[in-house]
Amino acid sequence: MQRRKIGFQAGLGSILVLGTLLAMVGQSVANEFQGIRRSKCQHSRDRTQIYEGTDNVLMKRLQALRTEMRARTSTQSAELDAYLVPMYDEHQSQYLMEADQRIRFLTGFTGTIGEAVVLMRSAAIWTDDRYIEQADQELNCAWRLFRTGERPTVAEYLLSELSPEARVGADPQLVPHHAWKALETELSADYIRMVPINRNLVDMIWGGRRPAPRSGAIKVHPVRFAGERWDSKVARLRANLTAMRCDGMIVTSLTEVAYLLNLRGSDIPHVPVFKAYLLVTHRELLLYTNTSRETLGLKNHLKAHSCHNENCVQLRDYGDVWRDLRTLAQHWHRLLVPGAVVFDTGASEAIHATLPRNIVFERPSPIIFLRAQKNQVERQGMRQAHIRDGVAMCEVLSRLEERFIAGDHITELSLAREIDHARKTQNNSEGIAFPTSVAYGVHSSMPNYTPSNRTNIELSEGMVLIDSGGQYEDGTTEVSRTLHLGEPTAEQIRAYTNVLIGMIRLSMLTFPENLKPAELDALARGPVWGSMNDYPHGTGHGIGSYSSVRESPISISYTAKQRFTFKEGYFFSNEPGYYKNGAFGIRLENVLEVVDTGKMHPTGYKFLAFQDVTLVPFEQKMIDRTLLSVPEKKWLNDYNARIRQHVGSELKRKHKMDAFYWMMNKTRHVPEYVTEADYNGVATTRHDHLSIAGALTIGFLLTRFVLN
Amino acid sequence: MQRRKIGFQAGLGSILVLGTLLAMVGQSVANEFQGIRRSKCQHSRDRTQIYEGTDNVLMKRLQALRTEMRARTSTQSAELDAYLVPMYDEHQSQYLMEADQRIRFLTGFTGTIGEAVVLMRSAAIWTDDRYIEQADQELNCAWRLFRTGERPTVAEYLLSELSPEARVGADPQLVPHHAWKALETELSADYIRMVPINRNLVDMIWGGRRPAPRSGAIKVHPVRFAGERWDSKVARLRANLTAMRCDGMIVTSLTEVAYLLNLRGSDIPHVPVFKAYLLVTHRELLLYTNTSRETLGLKNHLKAHSCHNENCVQLRDYGDVWRDLRTLAQHWHRLLVPGAVVFDTGASEAIHATLPRNIVFERPSPIIFLRAQKNQVERQGMRQAHIRDGVAMCEVLSRLEERFIAGDHITELSLAREIDHARKTQNNSEGIAFPTSVAYGVHSSMPNYTPSNRTNIELSEGMVLIDSGGQYEDGTTEVSRTLHLGEPTAEQIRAYTNVLIGMIRLSMLTFPENLKPAELDALARGPVWGSMNDYPHGTGHGIGSYSSVRESPISISYTAKQRFTFKEGYFFSNEPGYYKNGAFGIRLENVLEVVDTGKMHPTGYKFLAFQDVTLVPFEQKMIDRTLLSVPEKKWLNDYNARIRQHVGSELKRKHKMDAFYWMMNKTRHVPEYVTEADYNGVATTRHDHLSIAGALTIGFLLTRFVLN
Repeated sequence: MQRRKIGFQAGLGSILVLGTLLAMVGQSVANEFQGIRRSKCQHSRDRTQIYEGTDNVLMKRLQALRTEMRARTSTQSAELDAYLVPMYDEHQSQYLMEADQRIRFLTGFTGTIGEAVVLMRSAAIWTDDRYIEQADQELNCAWRLFRTGERPTVAEYLLSELSPEARVGADPQLVPHHAWKALETELSADYIRMVPINRNLVDMIWGGRRPAPRSGAIKVHPVRFAGERWDSKVARLRANLTAMRCDGMIVTSLTEVAYLLNLRGSDIPHVPVFKAYLLVTHRELLLYTNTSRETLGLKNHLKAHSCHNENCVQLRDYGDVWRDLRTLAQHWHRLLVPGAVVFDTGASEAIHATLPRNIVFERPSPIIFLRAQKNQVERQGMRQAHIRDGVAMCEVLSRLEERFIAGDHITELSLAREIDHARKTQNNSEGIAFPTSVAYGVHSSMPNYTPSNRTNIELSEGMVLIDSGGQYEDGTTEVSRTLHLGEPTAEQIRAYTNVLIGMIRLSMLTFPENLKPAELDALARGPVWGSMNDYPHGTGHGIGSYSSVRESPISISYTAKQRFTFKEGYFFSNEPGYYKNGAFGIRLENVLEVVDTGKMHPTGYKFLAFQDVTLVPFEQKMIDRTLLSVPEKKWLNDYNARIRQHVGSELKRKHKMDAFYWMMNKTRHVPEYVTEADYNGVATTRHDHLSIAGALTIGFLLTRFVLN
Repeated sequence: MQRRKIGFQAGLGSILVLGTLLAMVGQSVANEFQGIRRSKCQHSRDRTQIYEGTDNVLMKRLQALRTEMRARTSTQSAELDAYLVPMYDEHQSQYLMEADQRIRFLTGFTGTIGEAVVLMRSAAIWTDDRYIEQADQELNCAWRLFRTGERPTVAEYLLSELSPEARVGADPQLVPHHAWKALETELSADYIRMVPINRNLVDMIWGGRRPAPRSGAIKVHPVRFAGERWDSKVARLRANLTAMRCDGMIVTSLTEVAYLLNLRGSDIPHVPVFKAYLLVTHRELLLYTNTSRETLGLKNHLKAHSCHNENCVQLRDYGDVWRDLRTLAQHWHRLLVPGAVVFDTGASEAIHATLPRNIVFERPSPIIFLRAQKNQVERQGMRQAHIRDGVAMCEVLSRLEERFIAGDHITELSLAREIDHARKTQNNSEGIAFPTSVAYGVHSSMPNYTPSNRTNIELSEGMVLIDSGGQYEDGTTEVSRTLHLGEPTAEQIRAYTNVLIGMIRLSMLTFPENLKPAELDALARGPVWGSMNDYPHGTGHGIGSYSSVRESPISISYTAKQRFTFKEGYFFSNEPGYYKNGAFGIRLENVLEVVDTGKMHPTGYKFLAFQDVTLVPFEQKMIDRTLLSVPEKKWLNDYNARIRQHVGSELKRKHKMDAFYWMMNKTRHVPEYVTEADYNGVATTRHDHLSIAGALTIGFLLTRFVLN
């Protein structure tokens, strides 16, 4: 949920005012910060609880960490009063390899969003709304549980629990610089200090049991998919650096390294990247990664054999980056260090700490903007990948309906597995782009629900929301569809239609290129606002090409404005939703391509438009077409015609005739006019109308396809 | 036209680069800045031209001004190399009294937007696109003519024409502080100085022939219209000043003085205000105005008899404000001085120059926000005024159609006069709110066209765009409608319908109160953008209550973002348009009231919505209803029902039966479904359908009204 954040300053202000009124303020604040009531912990302040089994193991780990915090007492400094455990790796990646899942090792919590703080006498964890229940079950009673975005923030908690001059430690490689600075500033109000601890304390207690960091093969991403040689990309980056009068740039984001050098890896789940830093200067290119995986192919690709100029890559060991940064910094006047922007956190505190402050030029990485504007090969790849993705979805969904009618037992997880399997059997498939979400019934009302063994339920009559995406060598896909097994209610039809109208209005828009993404948001949200509802997530985000499914700089959200505008060849998601708490949820998501109309706005800006690349049918029985205008119905018919054309011919080629007929039935032509009879009795008369029209359409199209 | 402004810095940069390449750069730039080719001047550099008649008089005035510029050479300073003549009065009012029309006196140009610059060997005038042709005709060949918003700007022109260390004079009372500072900064690049000249040089050469400044009666705006006593408003303002830790505020805007003290005047055209400054401190209220118009009524209203405390107003002479500001400033730590915000320019340079810099606290005037949120009495007044305004419009428009069919000669100006007359005969009328615009045919394609004797043409078959508004004691109104005398083309129908759809989508929106006005703009513009067009003006602006028709802080424009949001009780215009150059133009404008839905957004913000207060029928034959969705048609039917109810009953009460029948015919119910026949042949079949439906509706409604 996008809740209003109560700023810490305001919070502290009111506490201080209260403090002058109440002597017991310290106590009352501490009580306020006990966190969410834990279902399995009877006495929230019970410190003497005896733990068994896994809980006992976890308690020992927590105690071991505290011992390490005390052991930090060295000749030069005092012990640590708190230690932060972020859920990040050194590159602030969205997904973590097992060796980097430190919160999981320390606390037992298996969610993918979280932040832990260990103090001598308390320990707390913050996580997203969607993981609260799971965290409550997985965490033992030593842990207080807080909701991210609500009070207290980590800083507020530390300020309330610690005395002035306390020392808060953290691994500076795992904390983004901007977050470190923000925390440092807030804590300084009470003279509490942030202390960088270069050896990770969790890793020390993990010791020999810590899995080896994953270091899979690095493979070349060929130009037939990338569309541009890496040296050309580097040349364009260097031109940017010249314009900014920088001597170089340290590339810290794994997707940026992979994009720039046309390389891919498999070090972390779902995103095809490998752990590396890349240093780009006008004279050299230095790639820091695990050198044990150097291959001849890699060296050839990077021209790494006896490389001594600026057009080849020198391979260095991952750990050498720190020494080299320090040494080389002496020759630089200005180094571009990536700052936080949209979905990117920017460089870690460790990178900043290694560099002299006067040479650091903190700006959004220019690679973000080079990458977002896909070249012609990447554009074609994205379109093709989405056609195959549509084929996979049609295969699964047609089987789903058939099996549901046949009475088969289908669960959220089994359906998710089937979807993943269907994707993986497509050409160029490289797996899935994020954990597939299948949410049945009331689960669909939770916007971020992902099924697990703990929550898995069987599908029956009702709503099913599916959000999934794939990695293909030629593109990354994402699609959300909401189905209904059975007969939807009028309320559900209205909600679905409003979400669809919002989606269509955004997709149909023609606009001058200087319009900001936030200024589109009301188009998609308007129909949902009309029913006094809203969806607690953005309307859209950029998407990568065989890379991360959520990519800067496009973010469509009226509450979080970005100054970056759309450009031809950008791809992004369009995903409005409707969630009725405890009842049902709807989300529809297509990936759109930004296209140039070739027309100019009177002010000299280009007129841009969108084209949907996702090609998966909507649920026709959920659409009240009397709510759609004629142009909106035309859009729907055109969209369905494109599914029939592209996905249809592919299904036919693969002899997937069951899926083909299912798809043809789901993409029937909707008459663009509405008759009075229709309008007076949508629910009762529509099916007959449609089945006749549908039959005719199918007949016509079958003829066309068969005669081809 | 909202052209992209080329920043001066960029412009100068390119000139300097050019300078290193070309020795003749000075000459080439000077040629570039000769301005728009003048139709009546054969030789653009002909300085020996002999002028006759008016032109001779105007040339003598220009020469007299230059003599005054030289005469500024005094013991303490050198002569002036340039003198600026702004089209402003001391309060930066939108309209000027005759005594303040200095550009008109000096140059002969009668437009309402302009800025003149007189140098020793050249003179130049900047005006808006819409006045270029008029200026070309009215100005003699001594004047170069430039388009506002294009290169060169005034600063660029001065930099190219003047030598370093030159002196540019201006009357600091007539130049907004922010404009003065901006110009000063730009000119300082070439060491050119801005010099305040306290005696206005134009007034000096105008001398005894200058009309006496208009100083009409000040009348009390009673609480039955204002809805709140002035002392209550002052108390709310003082609470704002306390929160900002200000000792007081100098109120410089005439509409703010009038609003705060519940007073109205007639010093300037169209806006019911009087020239005055108001000084508000926690201890006193000082009103500076022409004391010759003090009346017993005024003094009683302001409790001005022997006033010695903070709850009464002391009346001082207009000119005393400068001395008092200087004296009182010694006791203040912080004085709020209005800054530039949305449509308000903020205080003049003279105000700033009078005050010690360390006490000046420049912020948007809090009165803007107190005033924008109308109280219940003002809201009711706005609604009532718009009903009477609708009555006036129906009276004129019904007669227009009748007379046009009868073959009467009707011109733009004669129709404008009729519209003004119809408004002035309504209850509570106080005249018109701005010069009525009637634009026939190709004139309608000029968004800012206002007819004059020079441009006036007779109405025939074709498009007529009418933009007009009235001042009423209980509210200010504005409405635009586009009619068609004859049979519109399919292109015109499509354009009109798209403008109407944009207008309806904005009007229908329900939205969280933290949405910014700029974020609504795409809703209104989307349908127009769809035809690769756009209108070169904002989608909307705030409107006053018996005050200025264009009032801060609401401005809906995606290119000019404002951080101020809508609040319940705000009123603003919703006016999308479509202009096809050299062919025709369409604009539809309603005034909307912001209403609270009583529902909350999930984040805790209110859900707000709009209600149209303007009640004037649309042109049904211009609406292609197949392009409207069912909810949009419902909106239209509801809107028409409200016209029939409110304007209909008023027309009946006044026995204006011709206008009543005309209105009933124009607000016929549109079926919310569209039949196939409709869709296939809108233009041919619709009239029959409608005439039957219309006849039935009229019959039904007549029965209802007659039986009342």
